[in-house]
Amino acid sequence: MEITKPYLLFLGDAPDALAAKTATGIVDWRRDWCVGQIRLPGCKADTGLPDLDVQEAVARGARTMVIGVVNAGGSLPEHWVDQIVAALEAGLDVASGLHERLGDLPRVAEAARAHGRRLHDVRRSDQRFATGKGVKRPGRRLLTVGTDCSVGKKYTALALEAEMRARGLDAEFRATGQTGVLIADRGVAIDAVVADFISGAAEWLTPAAAPDHWDVIEGQGSLFHPSFAGVTLGLLHGAQPDAFVVCHEPTRTTMRNVDFPLPTISDVIDETIAAGRLTNPDIRCVGIAINTAALPEDEARATLDAARAAHALPVSDPVRFGVAPIVDRLLAEFS
Amino acid sequence: MEITKPYLLFLGDAPDALAAKTATGIVDWRRDWCVGQIRLPGCKADTGLPDLDVQEAVARGARTMVIGVVNAGGSLPEHWVDQIVAALEAGLDVASGLHERLGDLPRVAEAARAHGRRLHDVRRSDQRFATGKGVKRPGRRLLTVGTDCSVGKKYTALALEAEMRARGLDAEFRATGQTGVLIADRGVAIDAVVADFISGAAEWLTPAAAPDHWDVIEGQGSLFHPSFAGVTLGLLHGAQPDAFVVCHEPTRTTMRNVDFPLPTISDVIDETIAAGRLTNPDIRCVGIAINTAALPEDEARATLDAARAAHALPVSDPVRFGVAPIVDRLLAEFS
Repeated sequence: MEITKPYLLFLGDAPDALAAKTATGIVDWRRDWCVGQIRLPGCKADTGLPDLDVQEAVARGARTMVIGVVNAGGSLPEHWVDQIVAALEAGLDVASGLHERLGDLPRVAEAARAHGRRLHDVRRSDQRFATGKGVKRPGRRLLTVGTDCSVGKKYTALALEAEMRARGLDAEFRATGQTGVLIADRGVAIDAVVADFISGAAEWLTPAAAPDHWDVIEGQGSLFHPSFAGVTLGLLHGAQPDAFVVCHEPTRTTMRNVDFPLPTISDVIDETIAAGRLTNPDIRCVGIAINTAALPEDEARATLDAARAAHALPVSDPVRFGVAPIVDRLLAEFS
Repeated sequence: MEITKPYLLFLGDAPDALAAKTATGIVDWRRDWCVGQIRLPGCKADTGLPDLDVQEAVARGARTMVIGVVNAGGSLPEHWVDQIVAALEAGLDVASGLHERLGDLPRVAEAARAHGRRLHDVRRSDQRFATGKGVKRPGRRLLTVGTDCSVGKKYTALALEAEMRARGLDAEFRATGQTGVLIADRGVAIDAVVADFISGAAEWLTPAAAPDHWDVIEGQGSLFHPSFAGVTLGLLHGAQPDAFVVCHEPTRTTMRNVDFPLPTISDVIDETIAAGRLTNPDIRCVGIAINTAALPEDEARATLDAARAAHALPVSDPVRFGVAPIVDRLLAEFS
């Protein structure tokens, strides 16, 4: 069920920019789908879109309010519910990528019914999956993997899709998280699938294709993250990638939300090959994507140079410098 | 919510003995909870309990009919529904370990309501979990791991619990699958948890404990199984075991339900240590459990001897020869 555009992005009272990464992702990749943002007092995030209330947004043509923020507990606080109800009353549909279903909130369900509006829970899928089979499928696949969560796996995959298409390749971004699903208008939030079906859902998401077709698959978590490595491994096995790109954020000192040191890029390359070999013996690394947003340009360039020297692989910041060298390597390896 | 005993075990038309492994597991470990079995024409499984119909079972005191069989699709075929409704009409509660909820079957839900009976879906939990944190918890933990699915991880864990308790140790079996939950009357079917919460559910299942307490945790799947390795890894990270035992079935030629070769026992030891080190740097292997049910006794003994020589670890068949040597090693390592 496609979500009707354009969007009003709800940022709530996001405590920092990263909490609103769903909204930011949509603006960065689908700016023309968005008419504005709505923020509550104390909001520390800003997409740069005009601040609107729900009536102003409707007047500018908005059709759906997208919850573009997560709160720490993963659930919807009561003061967000007021805004969601107001949006429904104003005639907007509402879309959310949280684990909690919008329709499980009685006031939201009632307002949607009363006003004939649709609720979209993009993290939940009614799709039934089979368990993974591990059988090699035709077509090519690239997976982005990471030293941590939130290091740029989705942006790297989207940038690779764009660059590959610009070169006339048959490439398609495959979304595996709620923000990616909102950007691609399809996909599976793989972290919300029942555990038995992680690799099966990945197989469903990236089916058999033409020999020259590339699925560019958004990675999740990290094989070294103690909260989410199971999701990462199941996705790796189901995706059976021919190629992978390691994503990294060089200023981070511990893994996101846990007190664990980051693995090195080499650790991630080695372990991805060791584990990925199970369903694709020819898996190989074709590049490194480093998110240098926190660094001035000279430091950014020095960081990329150092990684390039250390790993003998193409290295870039996909947002700052593009992914051309990585696509060059991909084509050299698989032509 | 505890399931009322004793049980009538429903074997349906199980195509082979392994399809009824839930029923077999309950009989092997909780014989005194069972009054009989009910089988449909064509059933190839047999627990050895008397064959009863639902009225006879009620007359012998049965309180709950347990679905002790899985069918290939994982759902409930229509001709099972007739028997489930008949059980409810006769005054029995019904318990199931399938992914599909009993209450989602309209005829079953209606019969339960009409006759005031309870439906138990042991694979589903209404428990909300947090994401895993990876923080070291006090208390000791042992996890059984495997070269494949269905090789004896649950039986090994139950045998270890029994042997450890017989020696006066404070040990508790922690169930992670539907059969284990039915045997222990508690636990979490970890393969039915939402993927984001696999390690978090494992942390919840085996909380901080006294320094000398041992949780003996039922393993799931295999790090080398392309369908389920994500579940296995999330469980390993959440369980943060101090010790593990590798379980193996020596006559199997491919992994269960997929066309993949089995890993070696050494592969499993090495990869369990490599991955488990993330949340417990001191993880170590304390033994090997080989399921020799398919072998005559002389071959069984030869198989154990060969593994003992190859790995310099205690090796036994927990059902045939007990787990004393493995507990000896455990105590030597952690005293």
